[in-house]
Amino acid sequence: MELRSAADVVAALKRLSIRGAPLIGVAAGYGVALELARDDDGLERACAQLRAARPTAVNLAHAVDRVRAAALAHPPGAARAAAALARAQAIHAEEERFSHALAGHGADVLSRCRRVLTHCNTGALAAPGRGTALGVIAELAVRGELERVLVCETRPLLQGARLTVYELQRLGIGHELIVDGAAAGLIAAGEADAVVLGCDRVAANGDVANKVGTYAHALAARAAGIPFVVAGPSSTIDLACPEGSAIAIEERDGDEVRTVGAGSPDGPRALTLPGTRCRNPAFDVTPATLVTALVTERGAVTPVTAEGIRAHLA
Amino acid sequence: MELRSAADVVAALKRLSIRGAPLIGVAAGYGVALELARDDDGLERACAQLRAARPTAVNLAHAVDRVRAAALAHPPGAARAAAALARAQAIHAEEERFSHALAGHGADVLSRCRRVLTHCNTGALAAPGRGTALGVIAELAVRGELERVLVCETRPLLQGARLTVYELQRLGIGHELIVDGAAAGLIAAGEADAVVLGCDRVAANGDVANKVGTYAHALAARAAGIPFVVAGPSSTIDLACPEGSAIAIEERDGDEVRTVGAGSPDGPRALTLPGTRCRNPAFDVTPATLVTALVTERGAVTPVTAEGIRAHLA
Repeated sequence: MELRSAADVVAALKRLSIRGAPLIGVAAGYGVALELARDDDGLERACAQLRAARPTAVNLAHAVDRVRAAALAHPPGAARAAAALARAQAIHAEEERFSHALAGHGADVLSRCRRVLTHCNTGALAAPGRGTALGVIAELAVRGELERVLVCETRPLLQGARLTVYELQRLGIGHELIVDGAAAGLIAAGEADAVVLGCDRVAANGDVANKVGTYAHALAARAAGIPFVVAGPSSTIDLACPEGSAIAIEERDGDEVRTVGAGSPDGPRALTLPGTRCRNPAFDVTPATLVTALVTERGAVTPVTAEGIRAHLA
Repeated sequence: MELRSAADVVAALKRLSIRGAPLIGVAAGYGVALELARDDDGLERACAQLRAARPTAVNLAHAVDRVRAAALAHPPGAARAAAALARAQAIHAEEERFSHALAGHGADVLSRCRRVLTHCNTGALAAPGRGTALGVIAELAVRGELERVLVCETRPLLQGARLTVYELQRLGIGHELIVDGAAAGLIAAGEADAVVLGCDRVAANGDVANKVGTYAHALAARAAGIPFVVAGPSSTIDLACPEGSAIAIEERDGDEVRTVGAGSPDGPRALTLPGTRCRNPAFDVTPATLVTALVTERGAVTPVTAEGIRAHLA
């Protein structure tokens, strides 16, 4: 994929060719830099378009703001464009370092968990470096502590079935794919020692917005008494957002529910009657009280409280 | 579909051409009668094959036992075959009456619920008459109390997207389709006043085995403080089964998870990498403590306890 402008990056973000909260942030940073390389006056327009591309992941706005600030330290022209690019590259490199640090901290938290359940895709296809939750899983495997991963397919867009299965296969980590609705029953039956997954935005009180389906896994983990661990770079924490109810949940097109495989060579396959009305929230909110630990590149917050998060970021 | 023997019925049950706990029972009853009409000596073999066709819905064994008992009251021959057919027809007629009674009782229980969430298919395609949970929903609509149904698609086999959407469209009842993972978040967001769904087997203590995905909806309903109502004929209650952990949960072929649309003219569409290992439990168990009411043709059991169920059946 060749992206040459902020508009190219916006389009790629909207169609989910680039996805995963950390990668969304990195790409948006490059989007600002790309725009400045082609148009001295494009800064504010590019920033506004990129910020609006997807509403839920805070990493996007965060990265756009940082690249914009670096750019504004210079007058319009080559120096500004160079500063923007340098900041975008710095964010990219930073997220790679963060991913490696996070994997270690997460594996420490989950050190006695042999069988973990995960949702959506949080590996190298979602974040620079090793990813977030899948980086933790990979580190557990490297340490010889992991037996098996239960992978939720993650309807509607099947990031688990398409991306996480692919990444685990490449990593040589044993895994079994399940439908999202099977997770709670398998957790109750003792088939997972922990749930570990990513996050798209963490509110100041620790409430977590993540891929739709996450909240049910948290309820099941709590009912079964197993850890529910959320992994993401600290850039995913939005101190300006007091709690989960303040997080904008992106509602996407109903065709994602009505079909599968829209992006495949064979085109979409209908799953229901034509014209069926759908609701398609892309995320849900898990209250902080259900989160055993929030793991970032800085370590683990546990218990997950507003005070704990403030101290973690201080 | 023309079924002419117990083996034909067994095949139809296994491939889910006939599905839904009450309908499975009715069909199995006819399966015994069909076999006796063609083979005087076929009784025990037919009963054993039919009982083994699917392990979770108790209605199957229940109906087989009842038709077998009617048959055994007569010597092998035409009288035995006639008695079996008469008993199978009686079970069918009984389930139709039960469905209508159940719909009324359920609508009474849910009388202030405008927006309900349901899972799988529990209408006329799953049970004689109006169905079970979908019969309750239809009765709420007839009474002018219903605004909208949230329909979970019900992976892997999409009974919600394919069958419940079709039934609600024919009934003229407003509905919106969602992926299974979206249910908990929408319930938490206040988008449903109640959850109502069917059951495949209810243990003596009130634990409920139902389509995979049910347990997560129960957890979400409890967390949100909305009713979680289970509807089914009293034949679904298995007093011989003390609790949910004793219910055999059918694990089906992984191809159901790896693909969609196996039965469509276009054939199956792959959703993941070839050869991906899957777990595919067809059901899960919801503990009785999460069930607000169990509604049968006899009325409602609430709270759902072993004592309440015994009294209900007395």
